[in-house]
Amino acid sequence: MINVGIVGGTGYTGVELLRFLAQHPEVNITAITSRSEAGMEVAELFTSLRGYVDLKFSDPAESKLDKCELVFFATPNGIAMQQARALMNAGVKIIDLAADFRIKDVNEWEKWYGMQHACPDLVAEAIYGLPEINRRQVKKARLIANPGCYPTAVQLGFLPLVESGIVDIDHLVADVKSGVSGAGRKAEVHTLLAEASDNFKAYGVPGHRHLPEIKQGLSIVAGNPVGLTFVPHLVPMIRGIHATLYARLTKKRKVDLQALYEKRYAKEPFVDVLPSGGHPETRSVRGSNICRIAVHQPQNSDTVVILSVTDNLVKGAAGQAVQNMNIMWGFPETLGISHIPLIP
Amino acid sequence: MINVGIVGGTGYTGVELLRFLAQHPEVNITAITSRSEAGMEVAELFTSLRGYVDLKFSDPAESKLDKCELVFFATPNGIAMQQARALMNAGVKIIDLAADFRIKDVNEWEKWYGMQHACPDLVAEAIYGLPEINRRQVKKARLIANPGCYPTAVQLGFLPLVESGIVDIDHLVADVKSGVSGAGRKAEVHTLLAEASDNFKAYGVPGHRHLPEIKQGLSIVAGNPVGLTFVPHLVPMIRGIHATLYARLTKKRKVDLQALYEKRYAKEPFVDVLPSGGHPETRSVRGSNICRIAVHQPQNSDTVVILSVTDNLVKGAAGQAVQNMNIMWGFPETLGISHIPLIP
Amino acid sequence: MINVGIVGGTGYTGVELLRFLAQHPEVNITAITSRSEAGMEVAELFTSLRGYVDLKFSDPAESKLDKCELVFFATPNGIAMQQARALMNAGVKIIDLAADFRIKDVNEWEKWYGMQHACPDLVAEAIYGLPEINRRQVKKARLIANPGCYPTAVQLGFLPLVESGIVDIDHLVADVKSGVSGAGRKAEVHTLLAEASDNFKAYGVPGHRHLPEIKQGLSIVAGNPVGLTFVPHLVPMIRGIHATLYARLTKKRKVDLQALYEKRYAKEPFVDVLPSGGHPETRSVRGSNICRIAVHQPQNSDTVVILSVTDNLVKGAAGQAVQNMNIMWGFPETLGISHIPLIP
Amino acid sequence: MINVGIVGGTGYTGVELLRFLAQHPEVNITAITSRSEAGMEVAELFTSLRGYVDLKFSDPAESKLDKCELVFFATPNGIAMQQARALMNAGVKIIDLAADFRIKDVNEWEKWYGMQHACPDLVAEAIYGLPEINRRQVKKARLIANPGCYPTAVQLGFLPLVESGIVDIDHLVADVKSGVSGAGRKAEVHTLLAEASDNFKAYGVPGHRHLPEIKQGLSIVAGNPVGLTFVPHLVPMIRGIHATLYARLTKKRKVDLQALYEKRYAKEPFVDVLPSGGHPETRSVRGSNICRIAVHQPQNSDTVVILSVTDNLVKGAAGQAVQNMNIMWGFPETLGISHIPLIP
Repeated sequence: MINVGIVGGTGYTGVELLRFLAQHPEVNITAITSRSEAGMEVAELFTSLRGYVDLKFSDPAESKLDKCELVFFATPNGIAMQQARALMNAGVKIIDLAADFRIKDVNEWEKWYGMQHACPDLVAEAIYGLPEINRRQVKKARLIANPGCYPTAVQLGFLPLVESGIVDIDHLVADVKSGVSGAGRKAEVHTLLAEASDNFKAYGVPGHRHLPEIKQGLSIVAGNPVGLTFVPHLVPMIRGIHATLYARLTKKRKVDLQALYEKRYAKEPFVDVLPSGGHPETRSVRGSNICRIAVHQPQNSDTVVILSVTDNLVKGAAGQAVQNMNIMWGFPETLGISHIPLIP
Repeated sequence: MINVGIVGGTGYTGVELLRFLAQHPEVNITAITSRSEAGMEVAELFTSLRGYVDLKFSDPAESKLDKCELVFFATPNGIAMQQARALMNAGVKIIDLAADFRIKDVNEWEKWYGMQHACPDLVAEAIYGLPEINRRQVKKARLIANPGCYPTAVQLGFLPLVESGIVDIDHLVADVKSGVSGAGRKAEVHTLLAEASDNFKAYGVPGHRHLPEIKQGLSIVAGNPVGLTFVPHLVPMIRGIHATLYARLTKKRKVDLQALYEKRYAKEPFVDVLPSGGHPETRSVRGSNICRIAVHQPQNSDTVVILSVTDNLVKGAAGQAVQNMNIMWGFPETLGISHIPLIP
Repeated sequence: MINVGIVGGTGYTGVELLRFLAQHPEVNITAITSRSEAGMEVAELFTSLRGYVDLKFSDPAESKLDKCELVFFATPNGIAMQQARALMNAGVKIIDLAADFRIKDVNEWEKWYGMQHACPDLVAEAIYGLPEINRRQVKKARLIANPGCYPTAVQLGFLPLVESGIVDIDHLVADVKSGVSGAGRKAEVHTLLAEASDNFKAYGVPGHRHLPEIKQGLSIVAGNPVGLTFVPHLVPMIRGIHATLYARLTKKRKVDLQALYEKRYAKEPFVDVLPSGGHPETRSVRGSNICRIAVHQPQNSDTVVILSVTDNLVKGAAGQAVQNMNIMWGFPETLGISHIPLIP
Repeated sequence: MINVGIVGGTGYTGVELLRFLAQHPEVNITAITSRSEAGMEVAELFTSLRGYVDLKFSDPAESKLDKCELVFFATPNGIAMQQARALMNAGVKIIDLAADFRIKDVNEWEKWYGMQHACPDLVAEAIYGLPEINRRQVKKARLIANPGCYPTAVQLGFLPLVESGIVDIDHLVADVKSGVSGAGRKAEVHTLLAEASDNFKAYGVPGHRHLPEIKQGLSIVAGNPVGLTFVPHLVPMIRGIHATLYARLTKKRKVDLQALYEKRYAKEPFVDVLPSGGHPETRSVRGSNICRIAVHQPQNSDTVVILSVTDNLVKGAAGQAVQNMNIMWGFPETLGISHIPLIP
């Protein structure tokens, strides 16, 4: 049983963390902070938690987070980096669901995120929490940079291709689609139901913050810088990411792509490779920590098509954070996050 | 640990039963039958169950349902009544999620359901499985008529008013709204996304099968026949029922309606009365077995407005069925159905 | 050909007015004002208007609205009343799509709208622009209070019943449902797609601003104050209002309700009474100025159920405003607003 | 004024044709046929047409289609080819909205459509009705093969790139997304709202019938066979297609792609090239015949990204059919199809 704090519990990753942690058998939630809602019952803001979470939002200053063993940051970018050092000095481990510690190149990070980094040395120490790549490092980490939602779906999709060195890594294409909860619980016009419903659009084509994160991850795997065209789209649905990935085969000899993927993920509890010819749908992972992948080589051309789906708030955020926690403390990796997807 | 069979596992109540039963610590699912899909992996039809349910649909004739301790019927109306007697003679208990045993007046049932009843005597024995009214009888029942989705939300909403005798029971109005999963997993034009999305309509205003079921339940409680105007509507959403209920107060003296409701449901694990002035939303119970209720008396007129929401597939179907099972076997009533609602 | 100005063109009623007026054969749009967007191309904000509207938003101060023959106010409440007198003194006619001139009892208005009224005398002069009741007065009006969206659907639904004096007007019930565009193009959390989609809820049950407007309208028709319980709901769709109306018959003799409605609306170009037994759906009027109505008397009880649907942005706002303009200038009443509803 | 017949008026392209033709100033609709619904009022099936279309569905055998000047086939594949010759012999012109005459290689057609072609010689005569490529031939055609929905959006998007010979035509990628109305008004499980809503998936990745159609069109333009990876997806919305297109630049010198597109489509009434950096959304063309296109070259890499949106039922079907009719008869090309898109 560990004492856990959550900083910034009023957004979608916050309420989703609470959904998992409130019933996690090894977790005791001691504090949920929110500057704006301090004093309010958590279950008043999120009626879904009535009867399950009996806490009030507390002011960060009074929340004794330094008494926790673990603190999750479910905050906007730029908050965790302000508070990480003090907590870590007090012996607290940290899982940051925002982007503060994801990009190793601090200049690059500052360019994309438009602010100066508060603790570049911690960036160096932080472990990128994609267990399917970094499980061993996660085990010993003090500070986890929990991956972004798009980067999780895209990297898990490309991983076996890039690892095996059989595709042209200079021209990867990731055409990705996300439900609107990815934009967060923020009052904005373009994500109103009256704007985003019955509608579909691309956004951020000239450049999106998840581009450098994905390129960094795949470049490490490849051992060389990858070239990636990354086009995100907004889908009129609440949850779910669907990545459609394109890569050109460079080898003449025939590769059994299906076997490649099945073997790579055979022992992964949260990656499910569909039988050949499958089309995973986002609802097949709704509310769950699973990433489902299908492998295609249409018309036997040299272009491989990978389909990869996740729930952006679970494997793409809160679920993966709890998975990292489970690994760090040596709990069974699926503990508290083995929910069956909600269909229909 | 009990052995459980499911007849008709290819619909929405079927997959929802599987979601609960596959992780229920006291249940062993021994058979899921489907005439049309016999031989197919359940997890092939419902990808969400990959890794959780390792069963094939089996032909009813070969499924040895008589070796189960409990059989759920998640079938269309008219199936359970054909098979109930043989199973019960073999010592099997039955929970019917369809309507075969809900209406005590067999003539009335035959009028609304357009077929002859196969076993009127079992109708007499069947217990209407609304635990908030019939918990004691459910405990000892061999045959449960699991309530309809609308009837659950409407009866729980009206119950305290009718029990306390303070409203005009001749002129109750239930304006109810349901997500389209209530229409089942059936290929039909009017529930296509292209037809039902971005659209709202009433249906069945001249008469709906849930009308006699609700009237029966409330009449028993009232000790007199009630008059009810019941208007169902189709909402462009997947899950959820919202009942807006209207009743006229007949007493001159002021009644504390909020206290009446809170007291009535104080010990109910699955009925949540919101604080005064609340507006429950259907997503606040999405995927959960909870019914949330709010009580209003707008403008201090003599008209009471009750808002009652459920997930039609959970408290309105599969969750309530498992709740009844828990009661019948003396398991903790919330065992296996204490999922926190999925928000957003 | 008349010169028309629009004040506040950046909301949903604004863009909808532009959709109608840009192709109206008798209208020349001379100015669209917006303090916040002054200088921006209208078609940059609303891509749908590219090629159809070649105007920029202009600052109200520089827009020479006093040179127009007609100015529409598509503004928040409280704006039109500040500017109406000066424009009217300059000979400009006004159609206010907001609520400033709808409630004759200025005290009542101030209570519900939480501000002091700037020109009570103009309230007295204003004509409530529901052509089906006030067509003759609209013809000669200088100032039109364009009805609210709910009030249009509810009043047209109740009108024949109240006019004919056959129902208990002390206990009318209006259970109404609206798409989220009714909340306007405003950045708010509760109307985000991630909040409002796959969800249904009532709101404002203790009191909603459209309650006094509806009561006023029906009371004038009845010749006596009516009692009304009014419960609005939010539907996860963009456009559309569905009013489900309940009234108790007070006469013993049988009334042919279908004939009553058909006769009342026989000459109305925008009210369509469905054949007996119908269930109008909101999409059947999507994008059009039509109100469709069906009449029911379920189970032959004494409770009448009326179903009334409109597009909240058209007959509930911009379309009705253009209809009023057509009447005021003696154009054919359907000119420029005879669009066929968009299905699917 | 021409006399027009519609074969197969009960689907989505049928009702959409009626929306345009019922108000087209040069068209007189003489017959709408439907074997299954013969005798039923059209406006009974499609309430949206009440007051606008005063026709009954008629049996094809009794519909005197040979007296029309033009017959639209809004039928499933394989119907038009059975009836085309007789009508053409009677002097009737034909616009087929299905796929019977789209693929010049009859063997290829038969492979993808799984049936034997009834009149290969008419395939040779048929003109592929994409006005932006074939306007002159359309003018003189007796038989138009109206393009598919995906092929319209994809070809218009790739056209300037392929015409100018600046991209690698062996490795084009079209990642396309469609609303569910593209699946037609057919009772099927996978397009139910409860299945397709709040969900996103790819389908037909191994092969889709629109692949050969697109390849044929682009190959003619290129003067060489193109290689295309085509991945369609189902979006939880009613109308709209969004094509995200990827192509590799082969020229070393810098090309002004924005200028290329603007110049190519400068005179096209229904193709709108957005200003540089734009992201067209599907709702910006909802209900209209417009195709909006944006051009991107992210991160200045050698990969061009084109975004192309249409309304699948309008420019992707019925609107384009009417556009072809206008061209054939010398009417103004936008006559009767200049509807402003419906936003929100």
